Amino acid sequence: MRLNGRLTIAAVGKIKSRAWLAAQDDYVKRLRRYTTLDLIEVKDVVGRRIPDDVAMAKEGEQLLRATSDSHRLIALTPTGKMQTSPNLAKWLQKRVEGYGRIAFLIGGPLGFSDDVLAACHEQISLSPLTFTHEMARILLLEQLYRACTILAGEQYHK
Amino acid sequence: MRLNGRLTIAAVGKIKSRAWLAAQDDYVKRLRRYTTLDLIEVKDVVGRRIPDDVAMAKEGEQLLRATSDSHRLIALTPTGKMQTSPNLAKWLQKRVEGYGRIAFLIGGPLGFSDDVLAACHEQISLSPLTFTHEMARILLLEQLYRACTILAGEQYHK
Repeated sequence: MRLNGRLTIAAVGKIKSRAWLAAQDDYVKRLRRYTTLDLIEVKDVVGRRIPDDVAMAKEGEQLLRATSDSHRLIALTPTGKMQTSPNLAKWLQKRVEGYGRIAFLIGGPLGFSDDVLAACHEQISLSPLTFTHEMARILLLEQLYRACTILAGEQYHK
Repeated sequence: MRLNGRLTIAAVGKIKSRAWLAAQDDYVKRLRRYTTLDLIEVKDVVGRRIPDDVAMAKEGEQLLRATSDSHRLIALTPTGKMQTSPNLAKWLQKRVEGYGRIAFLIGGPLGFSDDVLAACHEQISLSPLTFTHEMARILLLEQLYRACTILAGEQYHK
């Protein structure tokens, strides 16, 4: 069963380590068996000789430009809604049925500007723990893949 | 600042994918700058032509054999205590000061036998989401490393 929507992940910065890149490629490939997925990386500017709030604003502008108004915008934040994997799967199905295009936004190390948070329709969280941004991206990909297999009634062997 | 204890991670099964192995090696190396760490992999027997409960019992016996009675035993379970990274760091410090030797047990895909759960002094959880066992291991390693950097008052640049 395919998920009849279009998922976008828009993230700040590139994944640098080879291990995490390989994990990302693996899950992107798997996810595309179930749904249409776009992965967009915008430039990270934090720490580049500009004040943090200016950098966050610039990163936020890029994230919002990368995702059109027609998207349901979901921000990954530490205080967002947490749920189990089966509930995340149901939640995802409802979003896809209701909105068609869903975009997940992953911020840089400093998080999101107020503009991004105001533009997002929902916030979700993967854990109360803080992860690296690389890990957050892989975890999200893995959970989306897991959600697709749950919705397809398949057993996920890993 | 080093953590004056001895941490053990006892996990069911080997990590197979190269990407996750590289991530594991990276975090093990980093963690050993801060503390003594043993990583023990016991044989996974689930799915090998024996009933699940028998397999879980066998895996559990191996986990308990790999960790001596002198350890504070902590099981990673979906229903264990969840906390933020700074609180996990404080929690870890107290455990190390109080008990010296701490062992984290990570089960196989079916989880733990009742014997293991009865033997464990505490249960912790990384997220309400279900992860692969490979990911759970990497997440635990990363959080232990993060805890060490927090306790050392260092900034964790990743």
